[in-house]
Amino acid sequence: MPQDPFEWIGAQADARRRAGLARTLRPRPERSAVLDLASNDYLGLARHPEVVQGAAEAARLWGAGATGSRLVTGSTALHAELEDELAAFCGFEAALVLSSGYAANLAAVTALNGAGGLLVSDAGNHASLIDGCRLSRAATVVTPHRDTTAVRKALEGHDGPAVVVTDAVFSVDGDAAPLAELAALAGAHGAALLVDDAHGLGVLGDGGRGALDAAGLAGGAGTVATVTLSKSLGSQGGAVLGPARVIEHLVNTARTFIFDTGLAPAAAGGALSALRLLGREPGRAVRAREVATGLHRRLTASGLTAVRPDACVVSVRAPSAEDAVRWAQDCRAAGIQAGCFRPPSVPDGISRLRLTARADLTDRQVEEAVEVVVATAPTGARMPSADRPSGAAEAGLGRADRS
Amino acid sequence: MPQDPFEWIGAQADARRRAGLARTLRPRPERSAVLDLASNDYLGLARHPEVVQGAAEAARLWGAGATGSRLVTGSTALHAELEDELAAFCGFEAALVLSSGYAANLAAVTALNGAGGLLVSDAGNHASLIDGCRLSRAATVVTPHRDTTAVRKALEGHDGPAVVVTDAVFSVDGDAAPLAELAALAGAHGAALLVDDAHGLGVLGDGGRGALDAAGLAGGAGTVATVTLSKSLGSQGGAVLGPARVIEHLVNTARTFIFDTGLAPAAAGGALSALRLLGREPGRAVRAREVATGLHRRLTASGLTAVRPDACVVSVRAPSAEDAVRWAQDCRAAGIQAGCFRPPSVPDGISRLRLTARADLTDRQVEEAVEVVVATAPTGARMPSADRPSGAAEAGLGRADRS
Repeated sequence: MPQDPFEWIGAQADARRRAGLARTLRPRPERSAVLDLASNDYLGLARHPEVVQGAAEAARLWGAGATGSRLVTGSTALHAELEDELAAFCGFEAALVLSSGYAANLAAVTALNGAGGLLVSDAGNHASLIDGCRLSRAATVVTPHRDTTAVRKALEGHDGPAVVVTDAVFSVDGDAAPLAELAALAGAHGAALLVDDAHGLGVLGDGGRGALDAAGLAGGAGTVATVTLSKSLGSQGGAVLGPARVIEHLVNTARTFIFDTGLAPAAAGGALSALRLLGREPGRAVRAREVATGLHRRLTASGLTAVRPDACVVSVRAPSAEDAVRWAQDCRAAGIQAGCFRPPSVPDGISRLRLTARADLTDRQVEEAVEVVVATAPTGARMPSADRPSGAAEAGLGRADRS
Repeated sequence: MPQDPFEWIGAQADARRRAGLARTLRPRPERSAVLDLASNDYLGLARHPEVVQGAAEAARLWGAGATGSRLVTGSTALHAELEDELAAFCGFEAALVLSSGYAANLAAVTALNGAGGLLVSDAGNHASLIDGCRLSRAATVVTPHRDTTAVRKALEGHDGPAVVVTDAVFSVDGDAAPLAELAALAGAHGAALLVDDAHGLGVLGDGGRGALDAAGLAGGAGTVATVTLSKSLGSQGGAVLGPARVIEHLVNTARTFIFDTGLAPAAAGGALSALRLLGREPGRAVRAREVATGLHRRLTASGLTAVRPDACVVSVRAPSAEDAVRWAQDCRAAGIQAGCFRPPSVPDGISRLRLTARADLTDRQVEEAVEVVVATAPTGARMPSADRPSGAAEAGLGRADRS
């Protein structure tokens, strides 16, 4: 009698349920009265009429799919247009669009390590960067989160090509990488710097040009960035930005580019419309940061623990995974959708209620959301009053940020 | 003076150019007079009005992007509808839609090897399956192409969970895997069978239900399939099909599912419209196979060397990479777009002119295409007349296929 090949799956499922870590999909309806503070639609563009029109029109002009690899039939003039405008907007020589941010990170990490050198990767990096390091089969040094001393040591201890790999804004806590220091270290050691700006594009830098623009690093000869088209640009896809020779190298060697169908025209068209809209309305980036700062200020003034946001992610610590799940459920029942990050999605094992700011949230909506989050907070999530940050000081910082 | 971190990229680019293996992107215009025999749009649905309308309407109803991970805000009722109908159509208990076929394969291979067992992978498998094996960090035995004896030996030599991993139709030569034998071997050894049916969905099986339907294996307790939404369904995305507990396992463990933005609504809507159209018009699958068979028959009767197609891919051998490039260029100049597969995209190092059949090609278009391919064939691509297969016998086989 042959064994059941998936018997072990049942055992793992039981263990997840016992630990309170089982996940289920909850498809959302077309329209909902629940206020979204969980998506990555930072500029509120996914449903913007111009962006939707850009997507629909692209499907009509170019078809529902790209029909093949970008190297065969999958490259359209629309893809080229998006790549040109995205590179110009972000301040890089060239860009390459892929079907997802995940694919863009796998492409960039594996292709940039083609010489078999060293990868120096922050412990808080996104799963796609980690998988890129694993796929590259390169020697990888994982450095403690935001630890530039560890990065320096790793580079000093290595002879040959190296790439420093980091998120610009880390997705779990919304904190930023020390990009200027990392760029200086990379430059001093002849290493490249690869930055995933998924959460910075549209939010940071001049008019939302991203974290590398904010740090004065865009377009550097040794600097490569990846971005997503699915967050601030409200669409789907990812892109790699960098020197033209690096992009040419990716076209020739990146497996997730070569062996994948090109991004659907509708996604390219939606992202291009969003990019043009952002170019015309740079205030959206300013407003997104303002909402995030206000959200954090109000939450911490109420005694909750959250890292000061460098972009739009505001994560509030929960005492346990079960608490985080119940907290998110209670918020939802009260009309607020918040994200719930639990193991294995949190590198430090600490569960969070994860809120995201959007440029199209009103101050009143932010206040309502905070009221619900605070009212539903589990015991142990709030600090004693004496330890709380001064509301006035935080408000001052918030205002300074907006200038 | 710090070194140039990308110096090695220039050296690799020079080597590629010298070997005639440099690739460049050639974006296509909105409309073209060139006849496409290179895309994977097997049913000609990417520009079908219903499919385009499904994509455009989904963008209007649901927005240009999914706005987050499927586990946070990225699951819509549209995704659930697509998953239900796709699973039912293909004969599986459940389905999970991801942003690309590449992501679906990475998800399936890594998640199904969660118990740390053995992966047995065909040497001709798609890059995404190979990358899945690499990412899983499992013991992987790569078996010679379509070699069931080697698969049996690998399974016999292993104690514990195992997964046999194969393309249903291999993308380079369009030949099929021996699915029935592989399923029997997997079953006898308590192993799972994971089949990538990217090139079978919409073409093989009853009404295009795929290679697993054709082999009577759809819905098996130990069988998991992956499909793309970007080939026969004319859109973008991928899906994993299998027992409900396997899909639940993927929701909880597959990194390319958990840490990726959900598929854009337009892509889901386009694929759903294509699926419904195929359900109403099963003759499209029959016609696609008929075109492929006719293409192969005419090409081989003219002395060219091509593996008999099991689906829609008809690859013709070229004497060298340079010949393949020039051949494709000459075809293009004569109004026919053909694919050109060269190292490193061919596992055996043999370059090919790669043609794909489409259900919407007329017999006259196929004849015209063959005339061009034969007239532009490089010296050495054609066999001497005495070695050619009998045109009559091939035609007979072709007719039998259509019944």
